[in-house]
Amino acid sequence: MAVYTEVSDRSLEAFLLRYDIGSLLSFKGIAEGVENSNYLLRTEQANFILTLYEKRVNEKDLPFFIGLLDHLNKKGISCPVACRQNNGSALGVLAKRPAAIFTFLDGVSVTKAHVRHCGEVGRALADLHLAGLDFEMKRDNALGLSSWRGLFDLSKSRAHTVQHSLTNDIERTLQDLEQNWPCDLPKGIIHADLFRDNVFFLKEDLSGIIDFYFACYDALSYDLAICLNAWCFEPDYSFNITKAKALLREYQAVRPLTEQEKQALPLLARGASLRFLLTRLYDWLEVPENALVTPHDPIEYWKKMLFHESVESAVEYGL
Amino acid sequence: MAVYTEVSDRSLEAFLLRYDIGSLLSFKGIAEGVENSNYLLRTEQANFILTLYEKRVNEKDLPFFIGLLDHLNKKGISCPVACRQNNGSALGVLAKRPAAIFTFLDGVSVTKAHVRHCGEVGRALADLHLAGLDFEMKRDNALGLSSWRGLFDLSKSRAHTVQHSLTNDIERTLQDLEQNWPCDLPKGIIHADLFRDNVFFLKEDLSGIIDFYFACYDALSYDLAICLNAWCFEPDYSFNITKAKALLREYQAVRPLTEQEKQALPLLARGASLRFLLTRLYDWLEVPENALVTPHDPIEYWKKMLFHESVESAVEYGL
Repeated sequence: MAVYTEVSDRSLEAFLLRYDIGSLLSFKGIAEGVENSNYLLRTEQANFILTLYEKRVNEKDLPFFIGLLDHLNKKGISCPVACRQNNGSALGVLAKRPAAIFTFLDGVSVTKAHVRHCGEVGRALADLHLAGLDFEMKRDNALGLSSWRGLFDLSKSRAHTVQHSLTNDIERTLQDLEQNWPCDLPKGIIHADLFRDNVFFLKEDLSGIIDFYFACYDALSYDLAICLNAWCFEPDYSFNITKAKALLREYQAVRPLTEQEKQALPLLARGASLRFLLTRLYDWLEVPENALVTPHDPIEYWKKMLFHESVESAVEYGL
Repeated sequence: MAVYTEVSDRSLEAFLLRYDIGSLLSFKGIAEGVENSNYLLRTEQANFILTLYEKRVNEKDLPFFIGLLDHLNKKGISCPVACRQNNGSALGVLAKRPAAIFTFLDGVSVTKAHVRHCGEVGRALADLHLAGLDFEMKRDNALGLSSWRGLFDLSKSRAHTVQHSLTNDIERTLQDLEQNWPCDLPKGIIHADLFRDNVFFLKEDLSGIIDFYFACYDALSYDLAICLNAWCFEPDYSFNITKAKALLREYQAVRPLTEQEKQALPLLARGASLRFLLTRLYDWLEVPENALVTPHDPIEYWKKMLFHESVESAVEYGL
């Protein structure tokens, strides 16, 4: 939930003059995206999303994100695309922040994923991976393996206040991953944050994917591990192998995993758990008292990490 | 800024089955309204606003609000109207709260009001007052004169922490108003909260009025006093008589004020200032540390109250 920046009607009208998208009908701040301020913009032509980039997004990365959406969309992926200003630019400045106007995607996020949804996500993820293979820009994963030790150091001294064994559990996992992380898996563009909030459905069909602000160049199967965590656990943190089977089957129907990727899956899933555990732990410990955003509970990802530690092979994911 | 309640996609779909408004395309929490949770709902037919009533709105008042919007809309006022369920009811239950779906109004709130906007507001307010005259339901002003002493008592002991002379200034004004408040002014349905956020414009023309959840039966000219406060002060709290002239002139072009109403205006304006000063003061002192909403600064309305104290007759408002 966001909306950090107020936009005056005058500055908005001046901004819209740079576009050929019709005149303004309505403008409302929406509770979507945590990193940026988002507004629903209606003009005589259509609905759009106006995004103001707040400081958590690095301005240097914006051409990558906008170029990626353009590329994926041309390849048939249903994702937002930035509208061009009359001068050809997709990025402008509004309320002193970098700003862009995106096409609006129909669809609704599901609160509770069913097996059918998980299959749809698997297929869409594979489509996205294939579509991104020939995208020419690169962006490193700022929250990949090499960042985890430094992230942990920021929370280490207080981690036990959240859960008494947390410091040891993270240290053990981190050492193991640092020694055994597979570096030669097939790479490409990954979404890296394909949680329920970022996937839209119409009826039972996946209708679009949003929020590519963690997208980067990394192991494709690591993205799959993130999705197993985000889509296949029940609210009590039990693992639903039927959902995982659907997700993996539909993924492989489009892009079959290599033998090496299959073997690496339990390790990748532990890594994916640790990554979200570490950022959530940091946010949890650092959140200011008057914060507008309630941080996610880090314990959820600690439990998922422990589950994957008990997994001996990808067969246990239904593969 | 609001959105307090999460609505699952399943419960939303079940709720929509009660309506004949087309199937769901999109659903987003919006930052609008402080008392309720509001969502933008798109269906194949149109855009709508879904409102969940949180506990600050008294459920018993909902038939009044919904009936009023129906009535005003039939009289040509541009305001939201509740859609009827297939069983004829305008109110349902969603996520354990009373819920209603309203028609969507185009338009944008202005950040800074210009003279033209103030004239538009004056005219629309008078239209609204005339349209409401034959509305048959009544609702007392829960935040009228008789409530102010009790409201003040809740904040009295801490008011000086906000501004050192505040306790005395409020006490003096309150005593004066209690003795001299005019009880025989023309009454009718008033909006009672016609702030900038609640008025939409398209280009320079007023396109709609929203948020009738303070509407009640009270002196019509008191509503005008609320608007003078909300629309005719500059950010430095100086009073812009050109804006006031436009607002009053356009109001009177539709509904001329009686001599008694004109004479009462400075007193009504002090009362209108005190009412918002008292509720803001209460919210300011009571706001929980982890609040999602930043309370309005009460000092703004203390300064407006002092301005009106210096006014000797309505001529100083440009009347």
